[in-house]
Amino acid sequence: MASKKTLSEALENLSLEAKELYLSSEVPRLEKAPSPLEFLREWVNPNIPVIIKNAFCHWPALEKWNNDYLRKKIGHKIVTVAVTPNGYADAVVGDKFVMPEEREMQFSKFLDILEGRIQKRGIFYVQKQNSNLTDEFQELCFEAASEISWATEAFGKRPDAVNFWMGDARAVTSMHKDHYENLYCVISGRKKFMLLPPSDLPLIPYELYTPARFKATESGDFDIVDEVGENGTELSSSTKLPWIAIDPLNPDLDKYPKYAKANPVTCTINAGEMLYLPSLWFHHVQQSHGCIAINFWYDMEYDIKYNYFKFVESVTELTNKEA
Amino acid sequence: MASKKTLSEALENLSLEAKELYLSSEVPRLEKAPSPLEFLREWVNPNIPVIIKNAFCHWPALEKWNNDYLRKKIGHKIVTVAVTPNGYADAVVGDKFVMPEEREMQFSKFLDILEGRIQKRGIFYVQKQNSNLTDEFQELCFEAASEISWATEAFGKRPDAVNFWMGDARAVTSMHKDHYENLYCVISGRKKFMLLPPSDLPLIPYELYTPARFKATESGDFDIVDEVGENGTELSSSTKLPWIAIDPLNPDLDKYPKYAKANPVTCTINAGEMLYLPSLWFHHVQQSHGCIAINFWYDMEYDIKYNYFKFVESVTELTNKEA
Repeated sequence: MASKKTLSEALENLSLEAKELYLSSEVPRLEKAPSPLEFLREWVNPNIPVIIKNAFCHWPALEKWNNDYLRKKIGHKIVTVAVTPNGYADAVVGDKFVMPEEREMQFSKFLDILEGRIQKRGIFYVQKQNSNLTDEFQELCFEAASEISWATEAFGKRPDAVNFWMGDARAVTSMHKDHYENLYCVISGRKKFMLLPPSDLPLIPYELYTPARFKATESGDFDIVDEVGENGTELSSSTKLPWIAIDPLNPDLDKYPKYAKANPVTCTINAGEMLYLPSLWFHHVQQSHGCIAINFWYDMEYDIKYNYFKFVESVTELTNKEA
Repeated sequence: MASKKTLSEALENLSLEAKELYLSSEVPRLEKAPSPLEFLREWVNPNIPVIIKNAFCHWPALEKWNNDYLRKKIGHKIVTVAVTPNGYADAVVGDKFVMPEEREMQFSKFLDILEGRIQKRGIFYVQKQNSNLTDEFQELCFEAASEISWATEAFGKRPDAVNFWMGDARAVTSMHKDHYENLYCVISGRKKFMLLPPSDLPLIPYELYTPARFKATESGDFDIVDEVGENGTELSSSTKLPWIAIDPLNPDLDKYPKYAKANPVTCTINAGEMLYLPSLWFHHVQQSHGCIAINFWYDMEYDIKYNYFKFVESVTELTNKEA
């Protein structure tokens, strides 16, 4: 191996060699579900995203779920809806990390808003990641599934959470990574993912932000209110949150020039398709209006790959401090 | 994560966190062969060594192979035997990396030497890793195997090489790592392995050595002769070889203090047991006299783990340069 002149070069090389060694320039598509062994060997272990067709064609959800059906089935249920003025939940505004207002409402009202029958200020998105499908919408769960059998066999455990997603086309999930192996199933509409591998961590700028939350005022506008501690006290500065400082749809390369060397791949997941989104991959998500999706979170393994990732993280921190 | 003060600390932390996250202080034993899926999930992916009992109890080799039987069966065959004055093949002597003399002889003569019927200077070891079992000893291969079926299924490919090992108790395999997934089966006697995980790389000292080879003189002593280029010319200094500078049985901690923080584990593999020795693990091997073993080398994957390992390697190089 040629010796590296600087640590920054070594970090850039990590990203470069990932492409040369094992990453593709696009997300491959499988025509059918892999065997548990193939899934583990070809995708999970090497931490490579893949789109899987025909993996859940037997779910009644695929035929049944539309706004009218869901209104009849779960219209009476109270759901938690993320509401923001601009579609950006968990996103950066100035020096703050702003979370959505979490508003409880009947699902039928959420549908009214989504369909434009009721005019409301703000962008509405059912996105609460608390295993709402298995916990709140058991009626729906029977028409989909509480696990993906070949994935459960491959991972050797059941999912930690199964989440139901439905919302506005303007709602955007800002770029972040999760400590989960993620199987993302689009039931209707489509989702557009931008993905970046964990080896791009050194190229992705993080900054510290004060946690805050959108809060609708009586006039319908939104305030940004700092989060407070448990007993109403101000949060100390040490509770600032690291978050990705860049919008991958419009990256500020003057401010963050390293990001120019990152390797985003985009893919569109259509109704009936599943994305395997490996743990620690950065992702940014957009969707068609009213898109319905379910995702399965399987806990990741805190093994050698995580061990290495944490090392990359600490070297990145050291380099950024020196810069 | 607490921020690291220096790069050296980050490297030491990699080793420390490996222990905290996923490594054991001893090599576990399984009572029977795992399924391909279990093997992949529990051991190969997390790159964890394991001893497997009863994995090849159906091989006739286990009952049949002893010196007398092998003498009858393959005594007439010409084999390549590694000969050294001290038992150390591929080892460091002063500023040189010294390979063994490779002597061709009838297998029966090798047995005579091993049994002490013929007195010869030097230590003799059949250890040529050129898939000698499948290439040279096909007669023996039928009494063992040309692959491990559940491993072949797990890896999705057949082994690159199957090697036959037999030799003197004084023969030592100096510490090194291989770019292979290794299944090491002891047929008779026992092997003692000292293992260190890839995350210990920053703690293990490498130096550059001039390649050389032992060569027996007419008097029976051994000279150390520098390797020469293809047309008999001296090798240029750039052909120096990096090799591990420490003897793990007697480490010079004054010279290499970092090694004190390394995490060697030792294990003894008895007849009838198999060691899964994961790719890129450092290993040092000793054996009982006349120990017979077979190992299967499956090519490793050059994927995310390798990508990360190369990064650790380049950061280690940078740190050593600065030191």
